[in-house]
Amino acid sequence: MAGIVVRNIERAPLDIVDGLGVCGVATVHEAQGRTGLLGSHMRPIYTGARIAGTAITISAPPGDNWMIHVAMELVREGDILVLAPTSPCEDGYFGDLLATSAMARGCRGLVIEAGVRDVRDLKSMGFPVWSKAIFAQGTIKATLGSVNVPIVCAGAPVNPGDVIVADDDGVCVVARADAASVLDKARAREANEEEKRKRLAGGELGLDLYDMRGKLEALGLKYV
Amino acid sequence: MAGIVVRNIERAPLDIVDGLGVCGVATVHEAQGRTGLLGSHMRPIYTGARIAGTAITISAPPGDNWMIHVAMELVREGDILVLAPTSPCEDGYFGDLLATSAMARGCRGLVIEAGVRDVRDLKSMGFPVWSKAIFAQGTIKATLGSVNVPIVCAGAPVNPGDVIVADDDGVCVVARADAASVLDKARAREANEEEKRKRLAGGELGLDLYDMRGKLEALGLKYV
Amino acid sequence: MAGIVVRNIERAPLDIVDGLGVCGVATVHEAQGRTGLLGSHMRPIYTGARIAGTAITISAPPGDNWMIHVAMELVREGDILVLAPTSPCEDGYFGDLLATSAMARGCRGLVIEAGVRDVRDLKSMGFPVWSKAIFAQGTIKATLGSVNVPIVCAGAPVNPGDVIVADDDGVCVVARADAASVLDKARAREANEEEKRKRLAGGELGLDLYDMRGKLEALGLKYV
Amino acid sequence: MAGIVVRNIERAPLDIVDGLGVCGVATVHEAQGRTGLLGSHMRPIYTGARIAGTAITISAPPGDNWMIHVAMELVREGDILVLAPTSPCEDGYFGDLLATSAMARGCRGLVIEAGVRDVRDLKSMGFPVWSKAIFAQGTIKATLGSVNVPIVCAGAPVNPGDVIVADDDGVCVVARADAASVLDKARAREANEEEKRKRLAGGELGLDLYDMRGKLEALGLKYV
Amino acid sequence: MAGIVVRNIERAPLDIVDGLGVCGVATVHEAQGRTGLLGSHMRPIYTGARIAGTAITISAPPGDNWMIHVAMELVREGDILVLAPTSPCEDGYFGDLLATSAMARGCRGLVIEAGVRDVRDLKSMGFPVWSKAIFAQGTIKATLGSVNVPIVCAGAPVNPGDVIVADDDGVCVVARADAASVLDKARAREANEEEKRKRLAGGELGLDLYDMRGKLEALGLKYV
Amino acid sequence: MAGIVVRNIERAPLDIVDGLGVCGVATVHEAQGRTGLLGSHMRPIYTGARIAGTAITISAPPGDNWMIHVAMELVREGDILVLAPTSPCEDGYFGDLLATSAMARGCRGLVIEAGVRDVRDLKSMGFPVWSKAIFAQGTIKATLGSVNVPIVCAGAPVNPGDVIVADDDGVCVVARADAASVLDKARAREANEEEKRKRLAGGELGLDLYDMRGKLEALGLKYV
Repeated sequence: MAGIVVRNIERAPLDIVDGLGVCGVATVHEAQGRTGLLGSHMRPIYTGARIAGTAITISAPPGDNWMIHVAMELVREGDILVLAPTSPCEDGYFGDLLATSAMARGCRGLVIEAGVRDVRDLKSMGFPVWSKAIFAQGTIKATLGSVNVPIVCAGAPVNPGDVIVADDDGVCVVARADAASVLDKARAREANEEEKRKRLAGGELGLDLYDMRGKLEALGLKYV
Repeated sequence: MAGIVVRNIERAPLDIVDGLGVCGVATVHEAQGRTGLLGSHMRPIYTGARIAGTAITISAPPGDNWMIHVAMELVREGDILVLAPTSPCEDGYFGDLLATSAMARGCRGLVIEAGVRDVRDLKSMGFPVWSKAIFAQGTIKATLGSVNVPIVCAGAPVNPGDVIVADDDGVCVVARADAASVLDKARAREANEEEKRKRLAGGELGLDLYDMRGKLEALGLKYV
Repeated sequence: MAGIVVRNIERAPLDIVDGLGVCGVATVHEAQGRTGLLGSHMRPIYTGARIAGTAITISAPPGDNWMIHVAMELVREGDILVLAPTSPCEDGYFGDLLATSAMARGCRGLVIEAGVRDVRDLKSMGFPVWSKAIFAQGTIKATLGSVNVPIVCAGAPVNPGDVIVADDDGVCVVARADAASVLDKARAREANEEEKRKRLAGGELGLDLYDMRGKLEALGLKYV
Repeated sequence: MAGIVVRNIERAPLDIVDGLGVCGVATVHEAQGRTGLLGSHMRPIYTGARIAGTAITISAPPGDNWMIHVAMELVREGDILVLAPTSPCEDGYFGDLLATSAMARGCRGLVIEAGVRDVRDLKSMGFPVWSKAIFAQGTIKATLGSVNVPIVCAGAPVNPGDVIVADDDGVCVVARADAASVLDKARAREANEEEKRKRLAGGELGLDLYDMRGKLEALGLKYV
Repeated sequence: MAGIVVRNIERAPLDIVDGLGVCGVATVHEAQGRTGLLGSHMRPIYTGARIAGTAITISAPPGDNWMIHVAMELVREGDILVLAPTSPCEDGYFGDLLATSAMARGCRGLVIEAGVRDVRDLKSMGFPVWSKAIFAQGTIKATLGSVNVPIVCAGAPVNPGDVIVADDDGVCVVARADAASVLDKARAREANEEEKRKRLAGGELGLDLYDMRGKLEALGLKYV
Repeated sequence: MAGIVVRNIERAPLDIVDGLGVCGVATVHEAQGRTGLLGSHMRPIYTGARIAGTAITISAPPGDNWMIHVAMELVREGDILVLAPTSPCEDGYFGDLLATSAMARGCRGLVIEAGVRDVRDLKSMGFPVWSKAIFAQGTIKATLGSVNVPIVCAGAPVNPGDVIVADDDGVCVVARADAASVLDKARAREANEEEKRKRLAGGELGLDLYDMRGKLEALGLKYV
């Protein structure tokens, strides 16, 4: 079933994508009903980056990064590469040369449930990566995988064209069809939080702000 | 056995707490006979913070952060929240809103054997956290836990009012009753180290400084 | 078999060592046929350091750092301490006092498949460490190990005098006898990459630059 | 998005399911192009069981097994329960009472990326389970999840009605629509292997049986 | 603080201990409010053993099993050895000679958050062990620990004389003072389960048996 | 550096090998100075096997089992295949067909720091395997590795012709040149243990048998 490349995919609109990026991972995850998170082992190679983009998906054999080159041709401004190996692997599929190529084509970053290398260069280039490992182990170009097929990356299903949001909290995927409504909910959530933040900053307790005391008492909470 | 909140606890005196904070984790751990460390999987969400405070302990169900709100009411200037889930969990119990509330009440930080989120905000707010994971996964408010009961956090027993010291080396707990004597020993240790540091910086060997050559030879160390 | 210290070892020449350091881990690993990497769990305690040096090897019992003192006497300008415990351990074998001593003797850093502490001090001193853990747990001085014997550290065989290269990508070892030829290959690789980088930055695809299209088609890659 | 129960699902036909069960995990995985495996951390609680059935999927909150009761009503002869928690959890969602209920309704087993308990009873009852952990930790019944919605279990996407094959090698899922064709391929593979097994048992080498020598030589394999 | 041996400890009465052993880990854990479990990484070296006994606690340095010999003198009929290393370790502290000695003194088993060896012999001797690892790595006898002091083993606090229950589900500790009341609750729970088991075996659903349908509907569960 | 096959290797004599196999892993490990153990993550796929043999070493790319076929031609009566992947991998390199071939050539078992499959068949065939994982994931035959070169397997250096001893305790390697002397020491150790076993079984304490009381007192052990 490997060896398939889907050239034309539908992507979530970039204005919605960018809106989701501003909201960030935690808010977007909440806004879509606490779904879409990739596993917590997916960590940024440097802190401070916050990106959103549309997924170019890559299914690659362990230790073989050939399909990244195939995927690169399909990258458009605003895309994020999302790679899942066909079996667990932490080899360094991606380094500064691939990042150079990706940036030249408008790619905003990489999400990879495997390893990455040249991380000092990637940081100085400003090319953010969320990965399972930092590992210099070289890869080969011998076996076919697929590009722009549905994959599962770090426990989350990702389809080509889905929105990827990534920041210091990790990575979240939003289905393309849900992107607009999730953005609405995310913004509503942010507006709602602003008021709460002020009251909490003023010393008000969540117990009162969220009116929890009665429920806690009803459940039998005992102060001693 | 859940559902208990102890309102009034005895806390270690803040001047002693602050003294221990200056000494730092490694020194305090040594000073109390190499005990009290939490497991090495408890890592700071950003580097450079060094805090000490008195423990408000929280025992919470997996994926349920309700008890943090209950605990918040009990926080005083100088406290640190210490949360252990009742079974292993890496969900994001704590984010920027709770940090806002905590800071408003004088809380110095959070130690949690679970996950935390909004870490970029927490860093910019200067609210330090030591956690098992960074994970945006949302939590619910449905089930009771307890506050200010004895807990085990990351392998270390923590009682309410104990001293928590945390820095880039990890987290150490000092029993309230031992705090003053541990501080004395920690300061003695520091004074003692200053002299050694100078001699080692001058090129003197530990072999000579600590008079080890004879013992090594007696045990049969062979130079070849 | 423990209790052996080899005083005189042959070291790779420092000019070659320094050349390899400039190339960095990923390039050196590739240049020697994708070998020599230590496991990806060996992480720097702070980012940005890039060092190379000659290995002083230490085999130490779990939780016992005595042999580091023995090794220190043998350190010369340009050396790197490489420690493997005789069974898995994450205790903090090394801190700021030992780093002070090491720096006084010209040591460039530490690679340790165990724990390290005082990491804030080590960072401010500029003494880089790659370790399996950051853990303040104290160690003792009771049992003999060996110095400058062949060890396996994080899965890689290391002999005394071998070249250690370490940066944000991890750690790589180069056998002393191969150092010069590996440096030649690493430099050739770098020169070769410079041209590629320019072409990729200009938007050329790896598919064309590396002439991959024919091979992919021959293997049956299907565009749909 | 939680709180949905799909009553009526299409299931793969049981004669095909049973045929896949006879083939076993490794053969079925190969027959469908090396896809469908759940992660290797999914281990049987006792060895020797080999089952196949149709998936009743359960998405459950961490530490809350309420949805298993909801799912039980939907179980038919030949079904297998497949549970994925909404965030990582190893609590004991399932024990001998639930197994009693499941067996009474024709359930063939449980696949759960979490914990299970009463494993001695489950073994003596002959109710097989593949799980991430064996852990007695009790769960609650407080929060809604969903039943018979698409889930990702141990890295593999599972839809209700899909075929689950499980044995000592682990767990494999076959999409309902592919079940018949995968069975054909699996049987062809088995027939093909029988002949090979005889020749290999007679001492013939794979090098000759698969005609590998030429290819190896062409790639440059050197005998020394 | 190491180097303490408490000779005389109070133990839970053996008839209560034995009653708890009959109930098993899962039931006892539930009966005491879902507390007392050791971490799920504590696994039996062979299946089928179910024991209960009174804890002789051992705090031992990493890789040093000397204190087991010290503890052995204090073992009485019905005791279980419980060892926690002072820092994480998987060395093989215990083998067939120590098991021979332990059995001669009436010891019922070992719970150790470290390694064990000679497991084939231990199985044939019928000496059960729950451990973190099976590992032949030898240990030394060089440094003091303590015996019969409070310890934390695999995340659970254990005091000398507490009841340890262990079976294929793992290990549970019951505080000595609570043993009698926990036994009562455990037996009540078992009696209560018997009736449920029969009804579930007859095909009745938990949904009806536990009267869950109304609550689920009230929370908004939707059947589609 | 891959692509090398060494046809002729020197093997440890089989009578010595068999003697070491009778002694078992723990005894052999002790006899050679507590060295040679592979990591504790190397577990038998079924319990009860105890083997010894001479190593045929295999260095293989991740997910590629081609070199096992190459190695098979070199297998002689008494050999054990030892495979280390060039980067971490848990794919199922080996199953019942390869085991059939191996048994036909006198191979005694497999030690592999990766995955294995068809484990039910391997058990019924009586072909023992020690592996890092049980995983059905199929592998390919596309890239060269090497056979009978020095490797590091699960942290232990293994050279072709070395003795491999494996049982329920794990795996130990003995250098070919040391095999005879290690066997002598292992047998001496066993003889010595027999006497101790009897005395311990009679209730004598290790404290007295090994004359430890004085040393413990001298170190300051306090009975309270």
